Amino acid sequence: MKIDKLCGERFKERPSDCVIDSHALMVRGGYMKGVANGIYSSYMPLRRITRKIENIIREEMDAIDGQEVQFPVVMPASLWSESGRYESIGSEMARFEDRNGTPMVLGMTHEEAAVHLVREYANSYTKYPFMIYQVQTKFRDEGRPRAGLIRVREFTMKDAYSFHTSQEDLEEYYQKCYDAYNRIFARCGIPEVVTVKSDSGMMGGSVSHEYMLLTPVGEDSIAICSECDYRANMEAADSIIENDCSGEDAPLELVYTPDIHTIEDICAFLHTPLEESCKAVIYQKNMTDEYVVVFIRGDLDVNETKLTNYLGEAVHPGEVTDDCGLYAGFTGPYGLDNEKFTVLYDASLKGTHNLSCGANKPDHHYKGLKISRDIGDVEYADLAKIKEGGICPKCGKHSITISRGIEVGNIFQLGTKYTKSMGMQYLDAEGNLQYPIMGCYGIGVGRLAASVCEAHHDDYGPIWPMSIAPWQVQICCLRADDEECKKVSDSLYEKMNAEKIEVLYDDRNIRPGAMFSDADLIGVPVRVIVSPRNLGEGVCEIVTRDKAVNEKVAVDNVIDFVRNLINDRLARR
Amino acid sequence: MKIDKLCGERFKERPSDCVIDSHALMVRGGYMKGVANGIYSSYMPLRRITRKIENIIREEMDAIDGQEVQFPVVMPASLWSESGRYESIGSEMARFEDRNGTPMVLGMTHEEAAVHLVREYANSYTKYPFMIYQVQTKFRDEGRPRAGLIRVREFTMKDAYSFHTSQEDLEEYYQKCYDAYNRIFARCGIPEVVTVKSDSGMMGGSVSHEYMLLTPVGEDSIAICSECDYRANMEAADSIIENDCSGEDAPLELVYTPDIHTIEDICAFLHTPLEESCKAVIYQKNMTDEYVVVFIRGDLDVNETKLTNYLGEAVHPGEVTDDCGLYAGFTGPYGLDNEKFTVLYDASLKGTHNLSCGANKPDHHYKGLKISRDIGDVEYADLAKIKEGGICPKCGKHSITISRGIEVGNIFQLGTKYTKSMGMQYLDAEGNLQYPIMGCYGIGVGRLAASVCEAHHDDYGPIWPMSIAPWQVQICCLRADDEECKKVSDSLYEKMNAEKIEVLYDDRNIRPGAMFSDADLIGVPVRVIVSPRNLGEGVCEIVTRDKAVNEKVAVDNVIDFVRNLINDRLARR
Repeated sequence: MKIDKLCGERFKERPSDCVIDSHALMVRGGYMKGVANGIYSSYMPLRRITRKIENIIREEMDAIDGQEVQFPVVMPASLWSESGRYESIGSEMARFEDRNGTPMVLGMTHEEAAVHLVREYANSYTKYPFMIYQVQTKFRDEGRPRAGLIRVREFTMKDAYSFHTSQEDLEEYYQKCYDAYNRIFARCGIPEVVTVKSDSGMMGGSVSHEYMLLTPVGEDSIAICSECDYRANMEAADSIIENDCSGEDAPLELVYTPDIHTIEDICAFLHTPLEESCKAVIYQKNMTDEYVVVFIRGDLDVNETKLTNYLGEAVHPGEVTDDCGLYAGFTGPYGLDNEKFTVLYDASLKGTHNLSCGANKPDHHYKGLKISRDIGDVEYADLAKIKEGGICPKCGKHSITISRGIEVGNIFQLGTKYTKSMGMQYLDAEGNLQYPIMGCYGIGVGRLAASVCEAHHDDYGPIWPMSIAPWQVQICCLRADDEECKKVSDSLYEKMNAEKIEVLYDDRNIRPGAMFSDADLIGVPVRVIVSPRNLGEGVCEIVTRDKAVNEKVAVDNVIDFVRNLINDRLARR
Repeated sequence: MKIDKLCGERFKERPSDCVIDSHALMVRGGYMKGVANGIYSSYMPLRRITRKIENIIREEMDAIDGQEVQFPVVMPASLWSESGRYESIGSEMARFEDRNGTPMVLGMTHEEAAVHLVREYANSYTKYPFMIYQVQTKFRDEGRPRAGLIRVREFTMKDAYSFHTSQEDLEEYYQKCYDAYNRIFARCGIPEVVTVKSDSGMMGGSVSHEYMLLTPVGEDSIAICSECDYRANMEAADSIIENDCSGEDAPLELVYTPDIHTIEDICAFLHTPLEESCKAVIYQKNMTDEYVVVFIRGDLDVNETKLTNYLGEAVHPGEVTDDCGLYAGFTGPYGLDNEKFTVLYDASLKGTHNLSCGANKPDHHYKGLKISRDIGDVEYADLAKIKEGGICPKCGKHSITISRGIEVGNIFQLGTKYTKSMGMQYLDAEGNLQYPIMGCYGIGVGRLAASVCEAHHDDYGPIWPMSIAPWQVQICCLRADDEECKKVSDSLYEKMNAEKIEVLYDDRNIRPGAMFSDADLIGVPVRVIVSPRNLGEGVCEIVTRDKAVNEKVAVDNVIDFVRNLINDRLARR
């Protein structure tokens, strides 16, 4: 490929709408172009990268006995009604009616299609276990697409579904896939990806892991223990709180607190620490607008995903109206109408006393609240966000740090949610009907490409690993108007093509600076620089994009040198 | 791969809803499963076939300097409004509103997206010519999906778009693509595909060709000359008519013809040949319901695509109401209100006389009509279907035959329809702004797979060519319960895997008949049969699915023999 034939513009200025580097560099380098919010077309360099990633994923999925299949992008709504998700998923799912008025959806994931494909086939225990996967376009109507390929509406995803006759069998296969995923990320050049325990969200099921590339620009927060190997997504990280209630119980006492609305202000007013307060956080259920009041220790925050999972339905921050029976800034457990509102207690309030809290009337708070004495037995639930310096649920030390990361893959133990709802059964060895247990395993291809760029770039462009680079070598003919220089460059280009070395050739009559800027943006790992000055010494200059190699190599040895460099880097994992 | 792990059911009975063999065999063989009308999931054997086809297509597109890109499936309607197709395309295009109420469409083709991707880049003549292509899912909401993968609603297509600065340059590239397509079909095992001149339909442009696999089950009709190389789609085949009007002109005469409504009846009543009649065929415009009356020689039929192209808008068969001013069965040119109706004359009426025709009042016809004398100068257009035995537009002989075919690909010279409407321009060498000229080139991957099956199958299953076969070799271990038989089979399986020979292994404990039925349905080209009887002679039996090879080969030579057979067949084109 000659670079002057490559469609897509490269340019110097960082686009103002690009928040993260990978997005900016991939726009500046002619990798992608926005078609609509969160919807992109890919130019050749990106398409070559994603195809290489897809093939690495296929090899690893085939190696753990995956069968590549293909599900449709467009599915009838009836299929999603079988699992109940047509109703339970909101506006992220694109829906339309076909020409006959039949409701259809665009696939945002394919559990239903997977069960549909195999539910007649897999009717005997002898057919198990098996795994099917596809690489296919998906559409998820994100509310806030952002960060280039990190969070888009349309994307290519590898999604895999495994089927098992026992939890043990699922766990054994889950481990295989866990390892395969580590191999995939390592082969794509980001072995530093870590796994974290995660929340299963709308997928159903219990155990699940996310693969995270830790980076400050990531949109996910992860709790990591600095003392042991504990790592969890914020939604899945148990918040462990130890309360000291060794002092004497004070009596419950009403305090006049005009114009004091926040828990910080009341604690300052009373000269008590935040840990000795009971904060009310008010939500409303999405379906019914019913109020949900969460009480939590004043220094902590509610994790909405934990709350949603606990309730089994979605909520949004509550709007406290004049006649709703709640007083914004003065809501507390004592005297609150438990019939009228859903009232929840976070586990951080367990074993506390002498709390300050709202008094459920304007301009008043209580102090001295002890829930077990003043309210009675309540049920505590873990609804709090784990916080920096918090207690590790595994080793018990105050060693939690919060990091940011990009989720590059996820694996789920799904259980029987889909097989039960969709009526997939098999006969076990004793002749009894059973529901198979499923696992599912996803990787977003474009997001993985962007993550590699995020992990491996400098100010001038991406530094692609050999395994997924759009081309392996770039020849820079610095003086296309010099006969000898052009002849040597042409000859190297032809030989590399003949040897099936993937080569991009720049023989434009432009300044070396402009040529190198373009090369930096395309990020090809090996660069062969042909110039009259080098040729005067009978050599070419070979440099790698990552600056690890910078050598002058005799013209006749260039092909061998380059081939060895490529093979060496492809062999690294 | 072991066959007992292969998802998808194989069975003997032909499904009652399968009209053509490829559909029936691909359902019976566990290749595909219907998800909705015209929407399928693919099992592993089909996915392996389509991936091989996709890779053959990629190689040939790359060889003519194609750049693989990717356009989105979901596009904003605004992009399609730029070209005017959002409005002009009907219910075949799926439309929906995203969560913000923005109108979106599912791509059924990608001309707009292609222009969008390159219109800023290709702003100078020095960037031309270039071609971009993708392999991507498309959705076309067909009114009558049918024949399995031949006509579906969701499909994978390779679509390519080339851009040029002159018609000559387009034609030169068009020829390259024409040849590349022939190589693709030959490599996929159907070199017998023929090209036919075709109508450009909704794509715009003028010259275009379809690649047709001739088969009686095809849904397209093609006019083929038995004397020269003329071949054309029915829509594109000029209907050539020579009329003999050497006899004497009769006078125009009103005839009372009670209860005679059809042109056949009036000719029988008057004892004149159909060729001496003028038939009226009545349509209505889709947008306005305005009547369109087409007069055509009584022995011919109107081709609706020609009519639509001539009018520039879509029509449907007219419903003649009591008060519309037309008399069903009695409509004729003489005395018809040309202001009220669109009146068209097919070229078959040129140079005729003594025609019988309707008289525009109930129970009456005319005889002796001569259009030039009785109506005056009218414009004739080619609106007729060419017919069996008709005149070849190229060699002029009465040598037209009508064949059926499946369209497996098409190529179009698009002109400037999209670049003009979407404002894509470049500066030519003289510094003037010009619109680039486009070509586009499509192949449906699934339809191609089904077409190969249609061309190469027997009663028992598909006979896949080596180049696209799901596996290259199938090992049939006829007696898995026999130690030696199992040992030799296992060893062959391992060796083939180690040699990267694509092998499917059947070591189930089932009857040879059932094993061979399954093998026939999967259609793997080379079968290695391991049985105690053969092993007694120290051999395995090697047979090919196409019956060309049937040999006993010493066990130690099996791998070499198989490897040679594979390479030999892959080399054939």
